[in-house]
Amino acid sequence: MSVNLVRQLNSHDADFAQALKKLLAFSAADDAAIEAAAAKILADVQARGDEAVLQYTQQFDRLSKDQANSVKALEISKADLMAALNALPQNQREALEAAAQRVKSYHERQKIESGCHSWDYADEDGTRLGQKVTPLDRAGLYVPGGKAAYPSSVLMNAIPAKVAGVSEVILVVPTPDGVRNQLVLAAAAVAGVDRAFTIGGAQAIGALAYGTATIPAVDKIVGPGNAYVAAAKRRVFGTVGIDMIAGPSEILVLCDGKTNPDWVAMDLFSQAEHDELAQSILLCPDQGFIDQVQKSINQFLPEMPRQAVIKKSLQDRGAMILVKDMEEACEIANSIAAEHLEISAENPRKWAELIRHAGAIFMGPYTSESLGDYCAGPNHVLPTMRTSRFSSPLGVYDFIKRSSMIEVSDQGAQHLGKIASTLAHGEGLQAHARAAELRLKK
Amino acid sequence: MSVNLVRQLNSHDADFAQALKKLLAFSAADDAAIEAAAAKILADVQARGDEAVLQYTQQFDRLSKDQANSVKALEISKADLMAALNALPQNQREALEAAAQRVKSYHERQKIESGCHSWDYADEDGTRLGQKVTPLDRAGLYVPGGKAAYPSSVLMNAIPAKVAGVSEVILVVPTPDGVRNQLVLAAAAVAGVDRAFTIGGAQAIGALAYGTATIPAVDKIVGPGNAYVAAAKRRVFGTVGIDMIAGPSEILVLCDGKTNPDWVAMDLFSQAEHDELAQSILLCPDQGFIDQVQKSINQFLPEMPRQAVIKKSLQDRGAMILVKDMEEACEIANSIAAEHLEISAENPRKWAELIRHAGAIFMGPYTSESLGDYCAGPNHVLPTMRTSRFSSPLGVYDFIKRSSMIEVSDQGAQHLGKIASTLAHGEGLQAHARAAELRLKK
Repeated sequence: MSVNLVRQLNSHDADFAQALKKLLAFSAADDAAIEAAAAKILADVQARGDEAVLQYTQQFDRLSKDQANSVKALEISKADLMAALNALPQNQREALEAAAQRVKSYHERQKIESGCHSWDYADEDGTRLGQKVTPLDRAGLYVPGGKAAYPSSVLMNAIPAKVAGVSEVILVVPTPDGVRNQLVLAAAAVAGVDRAFTIGGAQAIGALAYGTATIPAVDKIVGPGNAYVAAAKRRVFGTVGIDMIAGPSEILVLCDGKTNPDWVAMDLFSQAEHDELAQSILLCPDQGFIDQVQKSINQFLPEMPRQAVIKKSLQDRGAMILVKDMEEACEIANSIAAEHLEISAENPRKWAELIRHAGAIFMGPYTSESLGDYCAGPNHVLPTMRTSRFSSPLGVYDFIKRSSMIEVSDQGAQHLGKIASTLAHGEGLQAHARAAELRLKK
Repeated sequence: MSVNLVRQLNSHDADFAQALKKLLAFSAADDAAIEAAAAKILADVQARGDEAVLQYTQQFDRLSKDQANSVKALEISKADLMAALNALPQNQREALEAAAQRVKSYHERQKIESGCHSWDYADEDGTRLGQKVTPLDRAGLYVPGGKAAYPSSVLMNAIPAKVAGVSEVILVVPTPDGVRNQLVLAAAAVAGVDRAFTIGGAQAIGALAYGTATIPAVDKIVGPGNAYVAAAKRRVFGTVGIDMIAGPSEILVLCDGKTNPDWVAMDLFSQAEHDELAQSILLCPDQGFIDQVQKSINQFLPEMPRQAVIKKSLQDRGAMILVKDMEEACEIANSIAAEHLEISAENPRKWAELIRHAGAIFMGPYTSESLGDYCAGPNHVLPTMRTSRFSSPLGVYDFIKRSSMIEVSDQGAQHLGKIASTLAHGEGLQAHARAAELRLKK
């Protein structure tokens, strides 16, 4: 027997709660040095604008003055985006366009179903109340450079913004040593990105938040980035909106033991291959099945190009947990509140009903997380690190905002004025009271 | 002629853009000492739990060991909340309950209209996609102590949470020197608050975010507070959700010159009386009307109990701006993106259509902001400091979250698997590709 690569836990063990807590423990280190560096860059960009952006870009992305002699020169034209798309091999272009079409179609449905519309009603005395929904004017999309530059993320961030009706989506992507990722550019073309700049880091976040002579200020910044980008986003929150600060990716598979163990093993791999800090966990009531998955893991691992990352992630942060039954698996899943939750079981909706906290729920053996990552339609930007307890997948609703609409009739003002006056006096706010009283007819 | 209390600007002046920018300039000082103090308290509460909470409460709220000998002793029982309600004068109780009823009714409508429901559809190959909506398990509501303790804010924060279906709403309110605000307790009873603790400051935020032996950890913290509370909320963001960090209150009145100038003056007062930093601005195309409002201000000011605050606020941060016409007023209003926007004009909806950015829009002369603050129904927790460009009034949607639901059919997996495989190989994520490929039927 080979040794198990992935640690095994048993929900029956006396120390299980403690072991689970230890397994899940992760905190993005608050690095004071990174925070200070990001703050300094932001302040500099706010003060010096284009000049500061250019200087940091030359420095951090190792661009010579010939490659980058102005921020204007760092803009990628729409023609360049289209050229990147046109230069793709036919199968890649078709896949990208098919994925974009499905993502768009899902988010169009989401726009309708998720209340991204204005509404209004009148009460009995003619007072009209409601909310007006308006898309953001301008959104900024941060795309990491180098190895973590994912064209699929361009689609997932830009498409909901465009479906929401955002007038201008501005993409920033660093190009270390001047190397442009053609798939990212092609995805920007497919997603309808309006403008794109080859800048990154805290300086790009500063440019988007404060605006410079060349780069217009946006209203919200979305998209993942490194620790400097995360620190900068956290800091500009309030000046602009931001999406969540993403942690390492997570998958939790609930399996009744009836799925092909190879499929489950590969689904665990597909999270683990992202990052050594990524977390893959299996919950299953069947020890025999767990053993089979361990076997599949041992068998597949040597074939995987990213085996080093997968192995470290599974060893350090992975687990297989033997549970009493699927009900208990659902309870544990709620306490984990995973980013990706696969319910690989017969009648998966029965178990999904018991789930309160998860970023996305993948139901049934055919729904591999990777299908959702690329092309099923729903967004792959999902809440990590237990934040699915209070936050949602990135969606059209992140690119609209609401204004309350209140039109009190003269009749309504008589009734409401007395209530407001009483409460305002109770709070010691006499001008509030008086403003209501002035509208009362004697 | 008396001197004008409020500064006047003219949109025709060459330096108007500059003057407007200066008028609006405000930044909540990033006070490093406050941030460090809040961070230290949070870390201490995380490490020592109840013991730390108790110690800071005794210290900062000047409670003796007799008044506070355990965190358990700091809990206000439901009976105490009900007793506070029962002890209110009849007119206050009726006003509070009438306001609560209207706020509840509006938010119930909002729950339906704003997409706080699950949805689902199937595509042509039997793949089912959708989103599941779940209320948060537990929400924390911070209520400031002392003079800024507003019972109306208890209603506005707790009611949307309860309408959303949050199981447990936990209120914290500091009681300096042991003094409880009976109106706040009564409002908590009316709003259906589940548990209440007399704690405040960064220590209360820490207790809600991390949980202690006595105080359960919540999933989201809402409600305004002082600079320490704001710094602590910003810091625990990610561990829990938070609402926006609120700045000083703002009102912008767009008036066509046909409203009673006394009404407009008092509406400007009712914002100014909150805080010396509050901002009240009037935009009007009629200089004669602006003069009348200045006159009303001079006339009313001596009668106001909070005249010192009103005067300083209006002098330092107020303005009356003469505009070319109402169209221009709407343009300027969009650049200001005010928390409260009154359109005091004939046919106000004509102008409201031109407004893209405002927290709440009060339409017509009878809709004083104070009616909206207390009892019209919509929420009075609104985005300040231009954040209405990207954020919304507090609402039911802040107390629910969504999970994507994906169930790919075996047929769907054939089609989607090929797309996912191509894209995953393009991104160098071979396990993602393989997971999709394993589901392909040979």
